[in-house]
Amino acid sequence: MEPNELNIDTICAISTPPGVGGIAVARVSGPRALTIVDRIWKGRRLDAVESHTAHLGTILDSRGEMLDQAVATVYKCPRSFTGEDVVELSVHGSRWIQRELIASLCSAGCRLADPGEFTRRAFASGRLDLAEAEGVADMIASNSRAAHRAAACQMRGHYSARLAEMRDRLIELASLLELELDFSEEEVEFASRERLMDIATGLYDSLTRLRDSFATGAAIKEGIPVAIVGPTNAGKSSLLNALSGDDRAIVSDIHGTTRDVIDDLIEIGDYQFRFQDTAGLRTTSDAIERIGIERSINAATRARIIIYMIDSSAPEAALDSMAQTLNCNPEASVIIAINKADLVDSAKVEQIKDKVAEMQPRAEVMSMSTRDAAAIDALKAKLTGLIDQSRESEDLLVTNARHAQALAQAAESTHRTIDGLRTGLSGDLIAQDIRETIHHLGTITGAITTDTLLATIFTRFCIGK
Amino acid sequence: MEPNELNIDTICAISTPPGVGGIAVARVSGPRALTIVDRIWKGRRLDAVESHTAHLGTILDSRGEMLDQAVATVYKCPRSFTGEDVVELSVHGSRWIQRELIASLCSAGCRLADPGEFTRRAFASGRLDLAEAEGVADMIASNSRAAHRAAACQMRGHYSARLAEMRDRLIELASLLELELDFSEEEVEFASRERLMDIATGLYDSLTRLRDSFATGAAIKEGIPVAIVGPTNAGKSSLLNALSGDDRAIVSDIHGTTRDVIDDLIEIGDYQFRFQDTAGLRTTSDAIERIGIERSINAATRARIIIYMIDSSAPEAALDSMAQTLNCNPEASVIIAINKADLVDSAKVEQIKDKVAEMQPRAEVMSMSTRDAAAIDALKAKLTGLIDQSRESEDLLVTNARHAQALAQAAESTHRTIDGLRTGLSGDLIAQDIRETIHHLGTITGAITTDTLLATIFTRFCIGK
Repeated sequence: MEPNELNIDTICAISTPPGVGGIAVARVSGPRALTIVDRIWKGRRLDAVESHTAHLGTILDSRGEMLDQAVATVYKCPRSFTGEDVVELSVHGSRWIQRELIASLCSAGCRLADPGEFTRRAFASGRLDLAEAEGVADMIASNSRAAHRAAACQMRGHYSARLAEMRDRLIELASLLELELDFSEEEVEFASRERLMDIATGLYDSLTRLRDSFATGAAIKEGIPVAIVGPTNAGKSSLLNALSGDDRAIVSDIHGTTRDVIDDLIEIGDYQFRFQDTAGLRTTSDAIERIGIERSINAATRARIIIYMIDSSAPEAALDSMAQTLNCNPEASVIIAINKADLVDSAKVEQIKDKVAEMQPRAEVMSMSTRDAAAIDALKAKLTGLIDQSRESEDLLVTNARHAQALAQAAESTHRTIDGLRTGLSGDLIAQDIRETIHHLGTITGAITTDTLLATIFTRFCIGK
Repeated sequence: MEPNELNIDTICAISTPPGVGGIAVARVSGPRALTIVDRIWKGRRLDAVESHTAHLGTILDSRGEMLDQAVATVYKCPRSFTGEDVVELSVHGSRWIQRELIASLCSAGCRLADPGEFTRRAFASGRLDLAEAEGVADMIASNSRAAHRAAACQMRGHYSARLAEMRDRLIELASLLELELDFSEEEVEFASRERLMDIATGLYDSLTRLRDSFATGAAIKEGIPVAIVGPTNAGKSSLLNALSGDDRAIVSDIHGTTRDVIDDLIEIGDYQFRFQDTAGLRTTSDAIERIGIERSINAATRARIIIYMIDSSAPEAALDSMAQTLNCNPEASVIIAINKADLVDSAKVEQIKDKVAEMQPRAEVMSMSTRDAAAIDALKAKLTGLIDQSRESEDLLVTNARHAQALAQAAESTHRTIDGLRTGLSGDLIAQDIRETIHHLGTITGAITTDTLLATIFTRFCIGK
């Protein structure tokens, strides 16, 4: 042990999901990981084994009694997730064993890890930058292919690399501009104003595109909000059931019943949609009817996609309140579903369709029945198609509010740079705006950081990661 | 691959608890484990690495896209849990990744494992006997030190070794008796009847002790049933709260909120107690009062320990119904708690105490207040003390109903053996009884088994174990 290592705690936590399972894994990381585990370990001495090897042995509890047979896998500094010495102990996954194992490790000299502390150490040792570390948390939380891909992309550093590239170019330009100051009497321009303008406008485009991708990115990460609205008995609940049916069953097949699945989170294709439930309202009086419309409007206002349902056998009420409901959110994509088309003469359905299309030119209009699997598939394709459209490319998806804010600030200072170039501002003032952009980009990857920021980011992690 | 290995599926499952966590582990076992994982693995070829080594690489999903960075730990046949080639894949613990990983493994040639199938393979390859395998399942389910210890004892084979020893001795005796048949005309006795009688009576003692330990063993495994009874307002709910307070908080600190914790399961010392809730009844009429007493009696009938609570400021109702409530279960241990002793003159409390002790000589009587931590600790000590008393030794604890039944049958045939010896029954008939005992002991460790029995046992396991 080196003297300065005395100051670094060795931390431990159960890293597998809470609860009971075949196996559970405790992770131990820090300068004393091997010697601490050796204290509660009967088997080959772990401080003498090779890195990346697994060993069968016995764990002792804090009273020195046999707790469990276990496999210890050793990762030696710096070839580990945290960059420190790491031991992963794989035990039988009972509550009792998990609890006693942590108690035993703590009494042997570990400290229980704070949430995200393993990842924070990986960041501190330079094995991950901040955006990559945040990608790890997003990765663990991701519930759909698209959310997973965005997080994986961020975790693997594609995004960071792009920001670092922008930042490097800006640092070079700022330096050149600042160099001009030393030669200010000679009026030289080390940085060609024309080239600067090219770079700044290109950068501004990239930054605003990234910033704007957050609307879609956040929706993909949290579940894309969809409001199913329309009068009672239009078939809203049936539609929700038809949409949810199969996909949710697959999830529970493999993972068992999960606690935190909200009823209306439904995975369709690569995305997870968050259906705002406005169903279940009964219209027994005018007052309650009004509350119904208000609720629908609230849901519609928060939605990215609105599905407006019309009962084709009784379309009047729906047509009356349609404009009021849809006008509240002009940004949302709108699908108007003329339901129960199988119960009504097809000429009448076409007539409703035409009328609706005329009233709501921005909407996609479809006739359907919630009992018709092909119609449900067509609706699903429309839903995923709308999100596909709003994504320019995988790489460009920002899913993190902190990043979106930093990107917006960077775009702003870049805009000032462009204005400055246009109005012939002096090099030192332009350099100042560029330095500000550099700063904002740096906060994303953690090149510039504060303890408060780090604490905020890592405490959102789960324990054991 | 050897030709006969074609018939053995390679199986996979998530072995860590269901849900989201820092990491999740998928286990792959079977003759083709290495080649199948290699198909979805970018990194060092796993079929070329040493056993018990860990490797960083990338997992591909079923579309061939990058799914996650992962660590693959390789255990080569026969040095693995199942005795087959095993790969454990440690990935980020998102729902999405876990699901896609299993999908990807299945499309690469695995089959999703049945519940308990890994352990069943460990049994099939002779790495565990049946009682040890059942110990694995109990171990995973155990929620207290005592339950854990009983399961660990069983899993590690202490119990099996003891049964095997009995069985070996019996097989030797039966063989000697059967040998006598070949020399029946000479009337030799290869097996001394005196020695046989010694062994049979010793065995009968051991078997009945083991069989009887099941009452305590099952209670320790499932939670020891305790009924808190007495009239309303005697302080039953306050007592339950006082008992549960700290211990449950510790559980949730480490494991987060758990789904399957029943409110009244409380860990005290080495045991888990299952408090039967009879609280919350209000006596608003005679009819309801009667229902209340019935409920209390039901709870008391099922209990191993009855805590009968008396409000010392209004003891009359309690004293009236005490005999009726306690007589329903003469087997249970009884603690009579004279509550609210702090609110009443101490002489009066002593008077109630004496009266109660006279009425219920088998009960332990204590005065207390649920607000007095020392009194609660004293009650806890009484509860654990009662269970400690009923356990002769750790080794002797049977927790499995199937084993208890087999032990009862073995005791019965041993009893017949003893009767036979006493009445001078012929050697071949005595041998037949001994063979029956051998059979029953064999079903416990799985020396004798059927597919139906195995299916029944292993489908109770969780998936991934």
